Amino acid sequence: MDNQIHRHPERAVTDRARLDQLLDEIGLATLSTVSPDGEPWAIPINVARAGDRVVMHGSTGAGALRHAAAGAPIVLTIATVDALVVGATAFSTSVNYRSASLRGVATRVTGDEQVALLGALTEAFLPGRMGEVPGLTHKQLAATMVLALPITADNWIMKVRAMGPDEMVVDADGGGAGGWGGIVPVRTVLDEARPAPWAQGAVPESVRLAQERRR
Amino acid sequence: MDNQIHRHPERAVTDRARLDQLLDEIGLATLSTVSPDGEPWAIPINVARAGDRVVMHGSTGAGALRHAAAGAPIVLTIATVDALVVGATAFSTSVNYRSASLRGVATRVTGDEQVALLGALTEAFLPGRMGEVPGLTHKQLAATMVLALPITADNWIMKVRAMGPDEMVVDADGGGAGGWGGIVPVRTVLDEARPAPWAQGAVPESVRLAQERRR
Repeated sequence: MDNQIHRHPERAVTDRARLDQLLDEIGLATLSTVSPDGEPWAIPINVARAGDRVVMHGSTGAGALRHAAAGAPIVLTIATVDALVVGATAFSTSVNYRSASLRGVATRVTGDEQVALLGALTEAFLPGRMGEVPGLTHKQLAATMVLALPITADNWIMKVRAMGPDEMVVDADGGGAGGWGGIVPVRTVLDEARPAPWAQGAVPESVRLAQERRR
Repeated sequence: MDNQIHRHPERAVTDRARLDQLLDEIGLATLSTVSPDGEPWAIPINVARAGDRVVMHGSTGAGALRHAAAGAPIVLTIATVDALVVGATAFSTSVNYRSASLRGVATRVTGDEQVALLGALTEAFLPGRMGEVPGLTHKQLAATMVLALPITADNWIMKVRAMGPDEMVVDADGGGAGGWGGIVPVRTVLDEARPAPWAQGAVPESVRLAQERRR
């Protein structure tokens, strides 16, 4: 299997900054691997970028994650729909999206690095949250597996569609003859925070910052 | 590899109606398969549910989709984050989510059924759109591969987390002692439609209906 984009090569993005932006924005990926008996195996997983690594975490009892920690090759798929693309025909109806896949072997991270990368995962959702809460305990760290997949020059591909529907063309079949077309932007927003019954004090700054990024 | 939920079994959902609701709401999945040389292979893909099938489509030139059409076992992963869960400690910080995986072998659909299922895919985004546009041409149908994965009694699992952060507990380490906790709902919205330069007439009813579902 190669690592090339064959379909719609014009949608390929090779600018690392665009990949970083997608990873920083979308904290949800699918981790795909191959099970010991050769079957496809996939789980949804929260991810965050920390420099040149994609960080994931889970329970030390999580099967697919343990398999990845043991050295099984993985693919991480991250995708988001940015707009519905409404064509004048069903064929030209589509979505604008950004997607990336990263492949390789992830490694388990322990010690101080584990603490730092777990902090990065939390702060990817809630900027500055680690300064608002107590440090992780030894027990909590022991129960949490942290894996990191390096981002290298050649282990990722990214595709982006970011345009209106194909030009309206009146073809021999009458397809595309007039009608409405355009895009409908899709956006993710964070609503008002709802405190837990035991919550003390005001909504923290980290939540306010997260909301600011999503409005 | 089994098809059981080992981690957080209390999050398992076995109600088919909940699966259908997730599939009807989230049109984006990851298709995972195993490449001919045994590597994990995954692509993001638009999906829609049509009765007891999950429908996907793509170009007849799309590699992973062709591999699936040839009978390779696949897993479809669909996941969405419904809320950020803010804990009083980093360890109790989490996300509320719904996720499902379906596994099996997809089959290629042709003829009248292909036309019907492509319509279902379009209408999953834009309810009623197929009544607003001309029918698909033979050329368009020939260029489009439609695959369907059956939903059976035992080929899917679903997990849901839908609650606040874990109870605040003051433990021996002082972790969780006071502070703020709660949830921040995450919502996807459709913004105002932007017409293409060639668009004629008003924004169609199908777009209005799609927006109504997402506000």
